[in-house]
Amino acid sequence: MSVKEKLLQKLEEKEERMIAIRRHLHENPELSFEEENTAKYIADFYDGKDVKVTTGAGGGHGVIAEIEGASDGKVIGIRADFDALPIEEEADVPFKSKKKGVMHACGHDMHTAYMLILAESLYELRDEWSGTIKVIHQHAEEVPPGGAKGIVESGILDDLDEVYGIHIFPNFEVGEVILAEGESMAGRSNFDLKIQGKGGHAAMPSTAKDALVAGAHFVTQVQTVVSRRMDPADLVVVTVASFDAPGGYNVIQDSVTLRGTVRYMSEKNKVPAYEAIKGIAESLESAFGVTVDLDYKYDYPVLYNTPELAHAVEDILKPNVGGYLKGVEFGKPLSGSEDFAYYLEKTPGAFYYIGAKPEGVDEPYMNHHPKFEANEGALLMSAKTLGEVVLGRLQQDSR
Amino acid sequence: MSVKEKLLQKLEEKEERMIAIRRHLHENPELSFEEENTAKYIADFYDGKDVKVTTGAGGGHGVIAEIEGASDGKVIGIRADFDALPIEEEADVPFKSKKKGVMHACGHDMHTAYMLILAESLYELRDEWSGTIKVIHQHAEEVPPGGAKGIVESGILDDLDEVYGIHIFPNFEVGEVILAEGESMAGRSNFDLKIQGKGGHAAMPSTAKDALVAGAHFVTQVQTVVSRRMDPADLVVVTVASFDAPGGYNVIQDSVTLRGTVRYMSEKNKVPAYEAIKGIAESLESAFGVTVDLDYKYDYPVLYNTPELAHAVEDILKPNVGGYLKGVEFGKPLSGSEDFAYYLEKTPGAFYYIGAKPEGVDEPYMNHHPKFEANEGALLMSAKTLGEVVLGRLQQDSR
Amino acid sequence: MSVKEKLLQKLEEKEERMIAIRRHLHENPELSFEEENTAKYIADFYDGKDVKVTTGAGGGHGVIAEIEGASDGKVIGIRADFDALPIEEEADVPFKSKKKGVMHACGHDMHTAYMLILAESLYELRDEWSGTIKVIHQHAEEVPPGGAKGIVESGILDDLDEVYGIHIFPNFEVGEVILAEGESMAGRSNFDLKIQGKGGHAAMPSTAKDALVAGAHFVTQVQTVVSRRMDPADLVVVTVASFDAPGGYNVIQDSVTLRGTVRYMSEKNKVPAYEAIKGIAESLESAFGVTVDLDYKYDYPVLYNTPELAHAVEDILKPNVGGYLKGVEFGKPLSGSEDFAYYLEKTPGAFYYIGAKPEGVDEPYMNHHPKFEANEGALLMSAKTLGEVVLGRLQQDSR
Amino acid sequence: MSVKEKLLQKLEEKEERMIAIRRHLHENPELSFEEENTAKYIADFYDGKDVKVTTGAGGGHGVIAEIEGASDGKVIGIRADFDALPIEEEADVPFKSKKKGVMHACGHDMHTAYMLILAESLYELRDEWSGTIKVIHQHAEEVPPGGAKGIVESGILDDLDEVYGIHIFPNFEVGEVILAEGESMAGRSNFDLKIQGKGGHAAMPSTAKDALVAGAHFVTQVQTVVSRRMDPADLVVVTVASFDAPGGYNVIQDSVTLRGTVRYMSEKNKVPAYEAIKGIAESLESAFGVTVDLDYKYDYPVLYNTPELAHAVEDILKPNVGGYLKGVEFGKPLSGSEDFAYYLEKTPGAFYYIGAKPEGVDEPYMNHHPKFEANEGALLMSAKTLGEVVLGRLQQDSR
Repeated sequence: MSVKEKLLQKLEEKEERMIAIRRHLHENPELSFEEENTAKYIADFYDGKDVKVTTGAGGGHGVIAEIEGASDGKVIGIRADFDALPIEEEADVPFKSKKKGVMHACGHDMHTAYMLILAESLYELRDEWSGTIKVIHQHAEEVPPGGAKGIVESGILDDLDEVYGIHIFPNFEVGEVILAEGESMAGRSNFDLKIQGKGGHAAMPSTAKDALVAGAHFVTQVQTVVSRRMDPADLVVVTVASFDAPGGYNVIQDSVTLRGTVRYMSEKNKVPAYEAIKGIAESLESAFGVTVDLDYKYDYPVLYNTPELAHAVEDILKPNVGGYLKGVEFGKPLSGSEDFAYYLEKTPGAFYYIGAKPEGVDEPYMNHHPKFEANEGALLMSAKTLGEVVLGRLQQDSR
Repeated sequence: MSVKEKLLQKLEEKEERMIAIRRHLHENPELSFEEENTAKYIADFYDGKDVKVTTGAGGGHGVIAEIEGASDGKVIGIRADFDALPIEEEADVPFKSKKKGVMHACGHDMHTAYMLILAESLYELRDEWSGTIKVIHQHAEEVPPGGAKGIVESGILDDLDEVYGIHIFPNFEVGEVILAEGESMAGRSNFDLKIQGKGGHAAMPSTAKDALVAGAHFVTQVQTVVSRRMDPADLVVVTVASFDAPGGYNVIQDSVTLRGTVRYMSEKNKVPAYEAIKGIAESLESAFGVTVDLDYKYDYPVLYNTPELAHAVEDILKPNVGGYLKGVEFGKPLSGSEDFAYYLEKTPGAFYYIGAKPEGVDEPYMNHHPKFEANEGALLMSAKTLGEVVLGRLQQDSR
Repeated sequence: MSVKEKLLQKLEEKEERMIAIRRHLHENPELSFEEENTAKYIADFYDGKDVKVTTGAGGGHGVIAEIEGASDGKVIGIRADFDALPIEEEADVPFKSKKKGVMHACGHDMHTAYMLILAESLYELRDEWSGTIKVIHQHAEEVPPGGAKGIVESGILDDLDEVYGIHIFPNFEVGEVILAEGESMAGRSNFDLKIQGKGGHAAMPSTAKDALVAGAHFVTQVQTVVSRRMDPADLVVVTVASFDAPGGYNVIQDSVTLRGTVRYMSEKNKVPAYEAIKGIAESLESAFGVTVDLDYKYDYPVLYNTPELAHAVEDILKPNVGGYLKGVEFGKPLSGSEDFAYYLEKTPGAFYYIGAKPEGVDEPYMNHHPKFEANEGALLMSAKTLGEVVLGRLQQDSR
Repeated sequence: MSVKEKLLQKLEEKEERMIAIRRHLHENPELSFEEENTAKYIADFYDGKDVKVTTGAGGGHGVIAEIEGASDGKVIGIRADFDALPIEEEADVPFKSKKKGVMHACGHDMHTAYMLILAESLYELRDEWSGTIKVIHQHAEEVPPGGAKGIVESGILDDLDEVYGIHIFPNFEVGEVILAEGESMAGRSNFDLKIQGKGGHAAMPSTAKDALVAGAHFVTQVQTVVSRRMDPADLVVVTVASFDAPGGYNVIQDSVTLRGTVRYMSEKNKVPAYEAIKGIAESLESAFGVTVDLDYKYDYPVLYNTPELAHAVEDILKPNVGGYLKGVEFGKPLSGSEDFAYYLEKTPGAFYYIGAKPEGVDEPYMNHHPKFEANEGALLMSAKTLGEVVLGRLQQDSR
């Protein structure tokens, strides 16, 4: 039996443990950069194994586990993230989040669960493969500047030859693998816009400067960045995600704060989008007599999958279609962002997607929705496919 | 010395006490309908006096003190309100609010302070005047349905012949009295608008229904109610005072809630303003694929000063111009609202304004501003003028 | 029979001629500053009368007819305007405009018709009154800078003691006279806004700068001038009356031009309204990458009726209520503008309104509507009331 | 010398004539569906040649010239359009349009000029190739429903085996050929939106229903169709190209008319875009009290280049890179639309682009701009490349 076959068999046998780990993590979510207990849980998992574990990686709660194979060879990184989101869970599951207002609504509990079991299984088979596998348990994927940046900058991954990662999505069926090549996930900028007006009595608008109205006009105008200013053939998204101006009935507020995100599939749109948004924000001063303070940050870069390695993944996984997989397909780029892009800025590799659609659901709640649910069948799919990829690539010469 | 002269002299002697009471109240503000301690403080003030004190008036914390004169006569109500606002004080005063997020930013502390001393002084002179004075210490002026409504409906004021009240405003000089006749302060409606969209990932707008964008368009469109739909000769104000949609960067929110107020100086605009706002709110459903829930409430009516009593106040006070007063003038209607309007719906009377501009300030912060300040010189002006009015009117036959 | 009685009788006898003149003028409208034939028609009317007629008054087509009474006395001006509007008539009348796209949609045909007959009648009775009547047939009331300005500046009216004028309105009943005192009709500014973008193919917005979209945002933002920036107790109107950007389907236009008007009942709002609109116009440059050219002109001032003369008119006309008049009432200020304001800047006087509601119509089409119609019964009312006013005032000492 | 070599040589010799024809056409542009003289000019060009010429093709001014080769073979269509645009030329060229307000601003003069000379040259060489060439001189490409639709529906092209066409674009260098495969040019819908308000005096907005303001809000809201409602990975454009509401200063207009276009690279967005725009249009009724009439027409379909024929073109032309061509590259889809899409709905083929950037210009004015200019060097490039393609493909078996 080949090492691959042994791995697949091990993973099947350990599926129940993946599910148990996942549910434990789901019940105990931690916000980005605050994942103390999750990091400890991960590090403890490697206790008693002959594995070099680095905690506090990247200046945060990152955990890097380094598994040596039987002899020297390529160094390949595989990554799973483990932070949760500030969302109050509304999904009706028996292992619902126990922490009010925090939820694993993006599947990072799934990522970490399969990865731990995959790492253990690869460790158990370490005599049968060559090279080094660095398991990157990454904190803080959801919140800028992201955990990946610090880890990359720390130098701990400087020796990587290749790097791989996956993300689950409930809009694909379990058994589907979706790939993209080249520009595959969007780059991102985030902004905070404070509009300082002048408060006053709601019945005396002329004695005030109504920052809320200025903010509303910002929202309507900023739609034109995508609709008029960017090449329609390019993927660009501008979303104002926060309009923070709660109040009563009687008071015109002194200031309001808006918050938003910008996505682009090509780095060439990064600066023009900023400039367009800046121009609109600044125009409010002249139009409404307010003052604005725009805090605009370039964030995760465009995620670029090395084309030949994306095709290598395809080549490795394709033979399983009709077996444990339903399909391996190239899809169009996604407007979501991922700090996995930082790894790929430095190291060739690929990031792909695993279907996790719940049973009997036509229109699943997507990632970041309070009712998000993932099909746990995706755990085994994730572990098997990434396991095959890493073993397959370790057997290859470096590119 | 006439009773009026005695009253004015007493009030001058007690000015320091007015200031002390005012500062005590300022340091200890209580929100509308929660004014338990303030009500107790007021009721306690009458302890030991031969005055009928009714607490819990109007089903809230209202306190009515009934002072009987030497013989039968007219029954006149004089009213001061005592609730505070949900505003974090930013004024730099030594007697700053001790309660976080609550502030006497509308001068009700001033109103209550002068009124207690005025009531005490009128009580001390009760042998020298005829009739009955009902001192109405009213709770909850700031928050619908307002304290006045309950007090009026309770019947306790059914025997009033006339009713008077004042409000301080820092945009007038100390010593200035401003009157209006007929429609003098605006009627009010308040609304809450919930826009239910569909949440989602900020990078995938087409999978969501962006309620925040719909809300922004509501704010921009609702400006046309005043600018296009109402007769420009009529005073109408529509203010969206709350846009409650705080969030992060990554999530399109499921719903947003807006809140606003509408003012009108003529009851004839009450319904058309509602219909225009309702039409705009409902249009969002077709335009943005959201659903809306508009909760719209007609609130304080237009405040109508009985013209002859407004002129009676003028006649009583005018002789003091050049004395303790700088001026007594008729001004234009104010867009603010007052539940004093409920008293005037039932009883003839007048409501007038007392200047309270801080020393050396050209553009004072207005009522409801976090930096609102009142000139304490207005305390004596309030007490003297209302004292003269009530004594003057008690001596008159009923109209 | 008094001179007044004789005048009223004459006017009644000549009513048919007023109607005929009015219909002639209605069929032959001329645009402002182009009223050559109308001016000639008016001047010809005085042929053979011992009246001093000045044509070309005010550097335009104005006609001043000076009628001397039996002896020296006051000099009183009475004015009627005679220009038409660039509107295609849609009213279904037998004397419909014969000139395509031009229409007497504001009643100036009515004004001129009654005035000619009134002038003739006063002339016929000239031995029975003292003083001088200057009949001011004014061109170009509808288009800035207005005919009145030039006539006033020419000095021809420098000797006027008083000046009067009327306007018909179809929302009042025939027989109703509406007066106002003090600030009675709005001051006006007009503006042209050219937004220069960059044209391009409609399918390639990012290669263009879409001036049309910038213009739309100007329209939505400029609503806030009235709704937020002006005191709600003040009458201010901002109307964008022209959005001149006709085009096909395929081309993003290079530039668009907007045009609008601003009205205010107090001169104090003139400059702040300008500044607010200027700020909004200029904000488009930063927001949309266009350049703007705002041509903003202060135009007709606020029309100020001398209060004692407005009341003098009331006193003169009131006795006819129940007779030929239904009512003489003071009304609220009108948001329309009138270059009659220029006469009143220099000379005391009053401008009042005559009801002209068509028979059997509840909601008449107002002035400037393509379906505007005036009740010709208003001709006699106009002539009689202004005749009485001028005779009544000539008999008075100067104020 | 091969037939191809002979053709290229002939075309080089005739370059001056192409330029002369082009300039003649440029000076004498005709609007879509009105191209009487241009059609006659084209038909006359074939006089004396043994070519079957069909005029009035497609029920319009289309001209089909059928050239028979030496023996039977494939039937290949090659198409050039010849209508002009309603644009006033601002380009500073010696052969400027002689017709006011009409301009060849899209290069159809170039298309027709090279095509006539190419046709003549292919005709002269007809003994040296087999098959049939149908030269499609198409009218009315710019205006829906487009000339192509009628020609296709007439059946005259039912026997085509393949069809080819080109378009010049000034943003590419002369010598560059740009290809696309599959979905290559956008599908299109066009709409007219009439907003019926109620006219009135500009100073009395509350008596009117301001259609212009409603129109402005339509423009701002319709930006959200692209920014929020369509998948950001899909190319969709919504342009409001016409806001037809010219007026004066004093009149609120009775109605305004807007006009726009929608583009999409996938037919799946056709209906959702319509529904979103319809929803926004209809929302104006509730929001502004107007009534709307939306006339929305699905127009040119997505242009789909048969992938193997696009690659066949590439294969035929690639050998000339370094010779008369600078490059043959696949590019991204264009948001412009072309009724060439109708030919491709029925017949396999390809449509490609020829660079026509003017000398010494960095940022050329694009098609449809009043200053649009085309480099006449593109004439020879167009003729040579299409000549090679048609000869190359005639030699191939049908696919």
